[in-house]
Amino acid sequence: MEIVTRVADLQALIAKKRTYNSLLGFVPTMGYLHEGHTTLIDKAKSDCKTVVVSIFVNPTQFGVNEDIDRYPRDLTRDIELCRAHGVDILFCPEVIDIYPRGKYTWVDVEGEIAEIACGAVRPGHFRGVATVCTKLFNIIHPDRVYFGEKDFQQLAVIKRVVNDLFMPIKIIPVQTVRERDGLAKSSRNSYLSPTERQAARIMPKLLAAAKEKCESGVSSSVEIVDAVKAASKESPMFEFEYAIVVDDSTFEEITNIVRPSRILIAGKIGKTRLIDNIQLIPCATVVKNQNF
Amino acid sequence: MEIVTRVADLQALIAKKRTYNSLLGFVPTMGYLHEGHTTLIDKAKSDCKTVVVSIFVNPTQFGVNEDIDRYPRDLTRDIELCRAHGVDILFCPEVIDIYPRGKYTWVDVEGEIAEIACGAVRPGHFRGVATVCTKLFNIIHPDRVYFGEKDFQQLAVIKRVVNDLFMPIKIIPVQTVRERDGLAKSSRNSYLSPTERQAARIMPKLLAAAKEKCESGVSSSVEIVDAVKAASKESPMFEFEYAIVVDDSTFEEITNIVRPSRILIAGKIGKTRLIDNIQLIPCATVVKNQNF
Repeated sequence: MEIVTRVADLQALIAKKRTYNSLLGFVPTMGYLHEGHTTLIDKAKSDCKTVVVSIFVNPTQFGVNEDIDRYPRDLTRDIELCRAHGVDILFCPEVIDIYPRGKYTWVDVEGEIAEIACGAVRPGHFRGVATVCTKLFNIIHPDRVYFGEKDFQQLAVIKRVVNDLFMPIKIIPVQTVRERDGLAKSSRNSYLSPTERQAARIMPKLLAAAKEKCESGVSSSVEIVDAVKAASKESPMFEFEYAIVVDDSTFEEITNIVRPSRILIAGKIGKTRLIDNIQLIPCATVVKNQNF
Repeated sequence: MEIVTRVADLQALIAKKRTYNSLLGFVPTMGYLHEGHTTLIDKAKSDCKTVVVSIFVNPTQFGVNEDIDRYPRDLTRDIELCRAHGVDILFCPEVIDIYPRGKYTWVDVEGEIAEIACGAVRPGHFRGVATVCTKLFNIIHPDRVYFGEKDFQQLAVIKRVVNDLFMPIKIIPVQTVRERDGLAKSSRNSYLSPTERQAARIMPKLLAAAKEKCESGVSSSVEIVDAVKAASKESPMFEFEYAIVVDDSTFEEITNIVRPSRILIAGKIGKTRLIDNIQLIPCATVVKNQNF
């Protein structure tokens, strides 16, 4: 595995490794890698001849009140993990490498897709994500890029950018990897104290409750969201932020679940913000019966 | 010459024509071609094996009060001109081809470069330009793109986008082509009535006056701009909009001309908005003498 920090060095390496008709896979990360990331890497390795991983804690996707310096880092461990999973090139740029002329050009997504849910709670966040991904995609020119479904809105925003700007890239979504008790793997879980970690079990429970409600025949988003909100009060440490139901493929907010949808939930435990989501499949039988 | 309107057809054609190590040149236009455009095409032809020209009147770079439907069009003549100048592929998409999923993703440039001069007068204009160029660049993947210096701020904005987003493209500026009396060639000149066309001669005169003033030893931007403003009043048909001096390479507004700079002038004659610019070279000798 080669480790590079400069854009020019990365591009020289890629030019050397890239051969005609072979795929280049890319996994962008902010480091502090866990099984969610290594699953992305394994998927990329199984699809592509060459795999590039980037580790870059992108300042522009953090809000003014979000502490970027607090974001967990462990480059030594990340390097070990990447090496163990067969990564070909690890790209660890500094801020100056990605924003060499300052922060002037932005890729900005308008509309529900970037403005509801986390877009409303973290203004500017998706602009930062869209901009840094565009930069990285243009530097690396991957054929395929791998994103976890845990950050479902991020995935939707990136798909939109790639489609709207005609980038010749295939975005590959990869299923969320979970802890034994169902909590989605996240670098931010490391912020949780043991007591908070216990309380975090509320997240998968809320998702399971929403899924069950939908499968039992409830098709009203409001009803499901209200149930989630009510259930969230059972955990005194959990500060509910939002629950929202969107179309699974278009990310449009929907009121009546008649096609594959997804509920996204966000909340805080102590200072730690957690997000997660699950697919909701409408209960066709019940819906049919209601027509009688 | 092949003429295509669909993105997929264009990309198939380019894939067929592009050969290893040969350059692909691109000239983006809004049509109604004149000698300014054909000079860009000729330059592209002399540099590159394959030349693509696009004709697309991009709606997102027109303001709400700017009449896009009034923009002059003559596709038959444009096709003839492109053919005569050896264009390989002419791309004439519809709005739906370039914005197939609506208008959600934007490339936005912040800072002086996009906010002063035309950026102040035409809010949103450069966002439209940056977005459509990014789309076209990603569709075509040219090695070199040719822009006229007449739209000097547009050139600066595009250079910034290409650099900031790490696009592997070389932007080639081409000198402004002028009519015999000095008026810069522009599709918009066709709006001018014979009387207005006469009055339009004020534009190159103002530029010449600014250049002369600078060469005679005046290094103060304010003084030069004020002189231009005063001189513009000599033409009762000319409605002065702005005059601004910027650094020739960074596009920063400057107050003291001690390095190659550029004065940009904009104004209206009747309903027709005209812009133009000229390089200002500081008079080194005079500046030196002032130090004694």
